[in-house]
Amino acid sequence: MTVREQFIVGVDLGGTNIAAGAMPTDGTREIAMRMAPTHGEEGSAAVVDRIAAMIEDVIAQTRLETGAERSDFLGVGIGSPGPLDRLRGVVIVTPNLGWRDFPLRDEVGSRVNLPATLDNDANCATLGEFWCGAARGGRHVMGMTIGTGIGGGLILDGKLYHGASDIAGEIGHTTIDATGRRCKCGNYGCLEAYASGPAIAERAREVLDVDGDSILLDLVGGDMSRITAQTVFEASKRGDPIAVEVVRDTAHFLGVGISNLLNIFNPDTVVIAGGVTQAGEQLFEPLRAEVRRRAFKPAVDACRIVPGALPLSAGVVGAVATFKAQMLGDL
Amino acid sequence: MTVREQFIVGVDLGGTNIAAGAMPTDGTREIAMRMAPTHGEEGSAAVVDRIAAMIEDVIAQTRLETGAERSDFLGVGIGSPGPLDRLRGVVIVTPNLGWRDFPLRDEVGSRVNLPATLDNDANCATLGEFWCGAARGGRHVMGMTIGTGIGGGLILDGKLYHGASDIAGEIGHTTIDATGRRCKCGNYGCLEAYASGPAIAERAREVLDVDGDSILLDLVGGDMSRITAQTVFEASKRGDPIAVEVVRDTAHFLGVGISNLLNIFNPDTVVIAGGVTQAGEQLFEPLRAEVRRRAFKPAVDACRIVPGALPLSAGVVGAVATFKAQMLGDL
Repeated sequence: MTVREQFIVGVDLGGTNIAAGAMPTDGTREIAMRMAPTHGEEGSAAVVDRIAAMIEDVIAQTRLETGAERSDFLGVGIGSPGPLDRLRGVVIVTPNLGWRDFPLRDEVGSRVNLPATLDNDANCATLGEFWCGAARGGRHVMGMTIGTGIGGGLILDGKLYHGASDIAGEIGHTTIDATGRRCKCGNYGCLEAYASGPAIAERAREVLDVDGDSILLDLVGGDMSRITAQTVFEASKRGDPIAVEVVRDTAHFLGVGISNLLNIFNPDTVVIAGGVTQAGEQLFEPLRAEVRRRAFKPAVDACRIVPGALPLSAGVVGAVATFKAQMLGDL
Repeated sequence: MTVREQFIVGVDLGGTNIAAGAMPTDGTREIAMRMAPTHGEEGSAAVVDRIAAMIEDVIAQTRLETGAERSDFLGVGIGSPGPLDRLRGVVIVTPNLGWRDFPLRDEVGSRVNLPATLDNDANCATLGEFWCGAARGGRHVMGMTIGTGIGGGLILDGKLYHGASDIAGEIGHTTIDATGRRCKCGNYGCLEAYASGPAIAERAREVLDVDGDSILLDLVGGDMSRITAQTVFEASKRGDPIAVEVVRDTAHFLGVGISNLLNIFNPDTVVIAGGVTQAGEQLFEPLRAEVRRRAFKPAVDACRIVPGALPLSAGVVGAVATFKAQMLGDL
């Protein structure tokens, strides 16, 4: 008699998109991966409807592909922007969705009649890279997701570390310059205020205000408000001096923040995901050089700094992994 | 038949002094605590001689006080400045003692014919406060020892966290201002460059260079080179405006560094030990206010920031505790 394969569904809820998919419990493959717009402006009930429909769709497609029964699905792992109360399964507040104290885990779980778990999206992305991606084989892993903001997750001794009140890993909101740029969080000099996607675009615009001679302007048809981090990376790849400088500065700022992490937490792996990884080695090479200059040698020698390997699915894979870790014990 | 009490000897090796003492395995009391000058300039063999003699003295005194047999002593925990190779028991380098790759653990252990363990002095101090001091009852603890430098230790999920290569917790060498003051480590803007004892004294001297009207000068007979952090705290207690400002700035810098830790590690306890705790509430009150301004509310709400409760013995108590944790399992 063979043991039937069992499956876990993962959901990655973002401000813009919801991603979902299924994996067998051994994490060997991704099945029925889907993405749909969140439409958070329609309110929490509509978003829960959409999530439940995606889960049912993923289950149906997985059954089609694998011949699984409904009873072969153990449950649903959900990754959500935070802060969260993980044990109660409640989203405390998400500025992008306008939710407060919303019991997302139980709303979704009861709708699809499956056990569910909830964890922070950046934690999920880190655990996804640890379980199946670029941080595989690590034991002490720092994950950063750089997009609209900078999220972070910590894996210590092979387990996701949540801290005393589930907010550990907020690397984006560590100060790299105590009297520096104002951050959306209200603080000054946060890493996120320098190296998030919008911050990269903003720094490029600041340079262009002074020196407008750049192909950046051509790329956006002269409309500076359309400059994004992607535009900057594109211009940098073409050798535009202003864009090259902005990317180099980004590497410097990230290098300062990551050096702090190396000296505090001495990880074996730093995995960086999100839009900025599109910049590739033009970002990673000077970033590693900055870290070598700043962090202690034994910490530098012990650590590799790598781009994520699951750019589209880390959140879903990690949501599956958090369900597995929480409900079935270790990964 | 009663179970015989068993004992562990702790040794706290510093650049200036060696402290030693014994504790029963349940940590309920300190016995035969001693302190002697290190005299590192006499070389490693002389220092090992001195440590071995202190251990024998502690054992003899403990036997006298408790009626214990020699066989009731399980071993020796040693705390030493780092970086260390903990598993091999080797001090990799200590600038203050001039040692390189020195097998301190086995040199001491074989001399007194007892099992020995080695851990970083700042880790020991943190574990001491966690086991028997101000961080008791915590689960995620950040310890800082502020003296000539700023050392740190992390307790995560109730256990000392060492990282991938035993250097985790170097909070003193996290950047709070990427373009700031040069640090002894060669980097710029490290917390230690602002808030260590010598940095506090240096900042006071810088203000005095511009505005010499301060009782600080009276306290040192007009010799600015004699100003120490203690002098600054003393003048601040007497209401001297320049000293008050230097202490407030110190609270600000420490608050920035500690806010970073709260956002990354979300500890339930931050325990601050070392000379600066002499400043008392004039330092702690504005420090806590800075952290409230900067760190995320759930992290602030979850965390108390307290001075150490074992100013003289945290290192020895922690050395005992590291031996117990390593050799007998959890504390």
